[in-house]
Amino acid sequence: MQDVPPCPVDEAGRLAWIREHLYVPAVCDILDDLGRRDRAMHQRLRPLDPDDCQIVGRARTFRWMEVDYVPESDPYDREIEVMDSLGVGDVAVHSSDPGFTNAPWGELMSTLAKRNGSVGCVCDSMVRDCRRIMAMRFPVFAAGIRPLDSKGRGKVMAYDVPIRCGGVLVRPRELVFADYDGIVVIPRELEDEVLRLAADKVGRENATRRELLKGRTLRDVYDEFGVL
Amino acid sequence: MQDVPPCPVDEAGRLAWIREHLYVPAVCDILDDLGRRDRAMHQRLRPLDPDDCQIVGRARTFRWMEVDYVPESDPYDREIEVMDSLGVGDVAVHSSDPGFTNAPWGELMSTLAKRNGSVGCVCDSMVRDCRRIMAMRFPVFAAGIRPLDSKGRGKVMAYDVPIRCGGVLVRPRELVFADYDGIVVIPRELEDEVLRLAADKVGRENATRRELLKGRTLRDVYDEFGVL
Amino acid sequence: MQDVPPCPVDEAGRLAWIREHLYVPAVCDILDDLGRRDRAMHQRLRPLDPDDCQIVGRARTFRWMEVDYVPESDPYDREIEVMDSLGVGDVAVHSSDPGFTNAPWGELMSTLAKRNGSVGCVCDSMVRDCRRIMAMRFPVFAAGIRPLDSKGRGKVMAYDVPIRCGGVLVRPRELVFADYDGIVVIPRELEDEVLRLAADKVGRENATRRELLKGRTLRDVYDEFGVL
Amino acid sequence: MQDVPPCPVDEAGRLAWIREHLYVPAVCDILDDLGRRDRAMHQRLRPLDPDDCQIVGRARTFRWMEVDYVPESDPYDREIEVMDSLGVGDVAVHSSDPGFTNAPWGELMSTLAKRNGSVGCVCDSMVRDCRRIMAMRFPVFAAGIRPLDSKGRGKVMAYDVPIRCGGVLVRPRELVFADYDGIVVIPRELEDEVLRLAADKVGRENATRRELLKGRTLRDVYDEFGVL
Amino acid sequence: MQDVPPCPVDEAGRLAWIREHLYVPAVCDILDDLGRRDRAMHQRLRPLDPDDCQIVGRARTFRWMEVDYVPESDPYDREIEVMDSLGVGDVAVHSSDPGFTNAPWGELMSTLAKRNGSVGCVCDSMVRDCRRIMAMRFPVFAAGIRPLDSKGRGKVMAYDVPIRCGGVLVRPRELVFADYDGIVVIPRELEDEVLRLAADKVGRENATRRELLKGRTLRDVYDEFGVL
Amino acid sequence: MQDVPPCPVDEAGRLAWIREHLYVPAVCDILDDLGRRDRAMHQRLRPLDPDDCQIVGRARTFRWMEVDYVPESDPYDREIEVMDSLGVGDVAVHSSDPGFTNAPWGELMSTLAKRNGSVGCVCDSMVRDCRRIMAMRFPVFAAGIRPLDSKGRGKVMAYDVPIRCGGVLVRPRELVFADYDGIVVIPRELEDEVLRLAADKVGRENATRRELLKGRTLRDVYDEFGVL
Repeated sequence: MQDVPPCPVDEAGRLAWIREHLYVPAVCDILDDLGRRDRAMHQRLRPLDPDDCQIVGRARTFRWMEVDYVPESDPYDREIEVMDSLGVGDVAVHSSDPGFTNAPWGELMSTLAKRNGSVGCVCDSMVRDCRRIMAMRFPVFAAGIRPLDSKGRGKVMAYDVPIRCGGVLVRPRELVFADYDGIVVIPRELEDEVLRLAADKVGRENATRRELLKGRTLRDVYDEFGVL
Repeated sequence: MQDVPPCPVDEAGRLAWIREHLYVPAVCDILDDLGRRDRAMHQRLRPLDPDDCQIVGRARTFRWMEVDYVPESDPYDREIEVMDSLGVGDVAVHSSDPGFTNAPWGELMSTLAKRNGSVGCVCDSMVRDCRRIMAMRFPVFAAGIRPLDSKGRGKVMAYDVPIRCGGVLVRPRELVFADYDGIVVIPRELEDEVLRLAADKVGRENATRRELLKGRTLRDVYDEFGVL
Repeated sequence: MQDVPPCPVDEAGRLAWIREHLYVPAVCDILDDLGRRDRAMHQRLRPLDPDDCQIVGRARTFRWMEVDYVPESDPYDREIEVMDSLGVGDVAVHSSDPGFTNAPWGELMSTLAKRNGSVGCVCDSMVRDCRRIMAMRFPVFAAGIRPLDSKGRGKVMAYDVPIRCGGVLVRPRELVFADYDGIVVIPRELEDEVLRLAADKVGRENATRRELLKGRTLRDVYDEFGVL
Repeated sequence: MQDVPPCPVDEAGRLAWIREHLYVPAVCDILDDLGRRDRAMHQRLRPLDPDDCQIVGRARTFRWMEVDYVPESDPYDREIEVMDSLGVGDVAVHSSDPGFTNAPWGELMSTLAKRNGSVGCVCDSMVRDCRRIMAMRFPVFAAGIRPLDSKGRGKVMAYDVPIRCGGVLVRPRELVFADYDGIVVIPRELEDEVLRLAADKVGRENATRRELLKGRTLRDVYDEFGVL
Repeated sequence: MQDVPPCPVDEAGRLAWIREHLYVPAVCDILDDLGRRDRAMHQRLRPLDPDDCQIVGRARTFRWMEVDYVPESDPYDREIEVMDSLGVGDVAVHSSDPGFTNAPWGELMSTLAKRNGSVGCVCDSMVRDCRRIMAMRFPVFAAGIRPLDSKGRGKVMAYDVPIRCGGVLVRPRELVFADYDGIVVIPRELEDEVLRLAADKVGRENATRRELLKGRTLRDVYDEFGVL
Repeated sequence: MQDVPPCPVDEAGRLAWIREHLYVPAVCDILDDLGRRDRAMHQRLRPLDPDDCQIVGRARTFRWMEVDYVPESDPYDREIEVMDSLGVGDVAVHSSDPGFTNAPWGELMSTLAKRNGSVGCVCDSMVRDCRRIMAMRFPVFAAGIRPLDSKGRGKVMAYDVPIRCGGVLVRPRELVFADYDGIVVIPRELEDEVLRLAADKVGRENATRRELLKGRTLRDVYDEFGVL
């Protein structure tokens, strides 16, 4: 492994650079260092497909309300609206379903999102149609798998508003970064700084690993590089 | 994908038809439509082997009681009785172990059940000997993996009685249908209707997927097919 | 499968013999029989890599304390000390992190432990850098995956002291045995007896399996071998 | 204790008759007998004032949505609307707050509700200003006490719709009956039958108590009255 | 407060002496010292009536099984049997109801138990008819209050067998000691030793309190009496 | 009720003024308004004595570590040190005990703290000797009651350091304010502002209450005073 080149300034280049050079724990450590210790989602959110789980994109938030009956007309109105508005580089992020008795994401949603250029979904609730979602290679993180449709269980009441997902307050268009180790959401105002410092941290971790494999003690290597 | 042929009337044909044409979320939606919104088991029940997890069969229920000591004589009496009575097309379904401190299903049980023609096990508790169970390709859903024998922890007190498993009230010989998306249990009196309507729903989902991939909006396609 | 040869008396031979001939549920049943029904860890502890999860070694215990701030100087002092002291055949065992908001084990720790001859890690908390840990084939059991560094979240306060991990009280240098079915910790004073009886149990389970496959009833086979 | 007179037909007389002659467990048993085993709320709902906790009235339901930010304008609009609409004999019933991080009921709400003739509140969430609520003798059941205002935590999205509270699906204007033993909600279509049968049950319980105190065995008395 | 006289040898005298001279925390500390650190029940068990909650007596255990239907005949058979067998000095102790969806103890049970000389009930589940139970001054500890009858929810399968209640393994006729601070169960073989040492501990606590009130430091007083 | 006079500048006057004029929910609302929405402790912390539960003082923090054995020498060393250092106006605040299997506060602690002028204790764990603590009128908030001594269960590792208690990060000497509605901890840098604004809020709440009792609608009164 070698040192990380500087982050490009254009959006597409930036997202590709993150995909290639960074990993979630390094970014998480930098968020910690900057005092934002609350930006890593809960461990219940796991990828459907462990072999296809990197997500780098912008949050499009869905604000769900639990309902306890089937509304008379058009139970899916706002949900259809936001789904049709998903675009290139978007990540669908659903507000937490506290009882986990609802599966608001499935195959048809994934089909549409992927067709529109979206790059993933983070659903702090259940999902279904998992085999088909995996077959189309659309990365989804969810809190579980259960075959329950959202009709009569939950309803999208708003979108592109702040929501809580996996314990993190997610604001619209914040950068979502997920890999096998979990999901972090980077506040807009810190984005440049976080990316720059994370790249530096990756370099020091590479050095630490190399030195440990040479047989030096952790005490010694930590004192030199300050990374654990 | 094409439309689904009619369900055969004989038991063996019916079970094979379900295996070939249906999937659990479609059946679950129909149960919802018929007002039975409580027939999908809890998400803690997951397949041991994700690649071999379809189950279609009739529920044989095991009613467990937690015990806190090893009984003097024959701690396994009724359990052995029901195990020896398992037959072709049966699914062993265990009542929930609330503390999950017991593994009432393992390799020897699976060996016997499979030998007798049983098609799967749903155990709302722990299981063990998992590698060997997977090797014999006997599908098991469980709430977790732990090496604890049931002796002195639980005892089968009755079988072929109503039990609660994964939050669902399961009656003897009800149809159990499991795949990667979860487990539903279909009430006897609704079985024909559910299967017929689920086949129809599968057809409409195929159409929706096809139309979305043509580039139509979800709003438009949902208005035509009413499926999400 | 055939009967198990006697356990060698030397440490290296003994550990190799366990790896080859025993499995966790058989050992767990013997611990039950000897009245130690509390030696199997909680089911939340699962292997990172299901295909590489056998651990047989001696417990080196880490006693963590939750902290709520970043200490001024050397936040990792005792942790580095115990890491540098890990040796051949050791298993790093971490005390339970009750909130699971900390990932005290990752790639650099695994790199160092493996270099020093350690054979695995049992972390009743989160872990991170999972892909790289799996790539180096170092077996780790953990309660979850989350990218949070321990700095400002937890601190090693002592090591080689009794700790609780996965609900089991683990004493330094007790034998840790893990496979796909879970983790047991064998008290020092019972070690010889447990290993001997477990080998015998394995033999009887082989016989039971063989007889069931011949078509005998469970009632009949259980009455002969007393194993379920 | 003596037998219960017939229930009056007018609403005011009926509510007064329930207050005087019935108690919650007797009503709950009748709901069980009629197959409605899901009408008693969860035990987390307890009265603020154990000495002043009987509620008999009609459900006015509040449908809450969790929010994660303070809306720009009028965060309380629908909540104020429904509060101003509360009338004589009404019981404010709030949908469950799954995280219990909100106290949507307090002193000012109680002041207004009581002024308008409402007879109680069932809040499956937190409440605050408890001392003052108790001082005005307005009966409130809640899941806990915490000083957090609802602003930026939850918002009333609808009212007089079906909601879930304490695990029970409550429909608008269903009869809510609470006392020290808990809370039941009686479906409209069963109301007359439940009240009639509960009165009969009260009579048989009186007889059972009397006979037990004479020294007869439970076996004997249960065989005569069928009540336990 | 003064020192404690020796414990009488006869059963009635012994129970009265405990009531007069001991308190639960002192007994609990002695059980700790003797290596039995698992004899204090979980904090969810609280007295119905805080002003009338001392219990000193012998455990009569009820072993419950969860059921999910109403049995055809005599749903209460063994329960009635054990209730009719309760005698002087007995404490009814119910095995844990893991879902807390059952209230197996109420007014009629309390009426009968008290009439027969029983001295209390420990119910690791729900109870009902609480006002009337308190009115008859029969001490009951429970995990909650809910109006649900046990019929179709649970069934007594055995009695006077070991059970688990509040996390403690309770054997028939073990000494149950409860007061406002909680519940301990004293193993038969340690009973004499525990009572003797607890009386001594009470004396040292009296001395510690007295010395602290004189103004000495805790360091100083602890060094003299070894009690905190 | 009338408007609140200005807060005195001296410490003793300030604490007395809070006791007389403020209540916890008003302070909590101001903390919300200032963006500190995380300063109210969890609802599990309840007062031992509801009639004697107001606390206004400065946090003295105890940092506990779970232990799993009894240390050889002086298990209570730092605990005794911090106890002997408690002074006038101090509030003992204990870090959360995640398993709630420890009762680190009891009668002797309360005796000493009260003697030294401390004004209360907030223990996010169990407490014991509750009757005697209530008798001496020393206000204690706790997460539960259980008779277990801390010896071999937990150990004070540091004091006067930041800790987490009831979900709130508490820094040494921050202002702790508790009443029947719960507990808030006010950050030092906001203290003056919070107290001033809370006094103003109390005035507006008085006006709102008065106007509602005159018969005005909530809509109308809220539009005038902006308080709910």
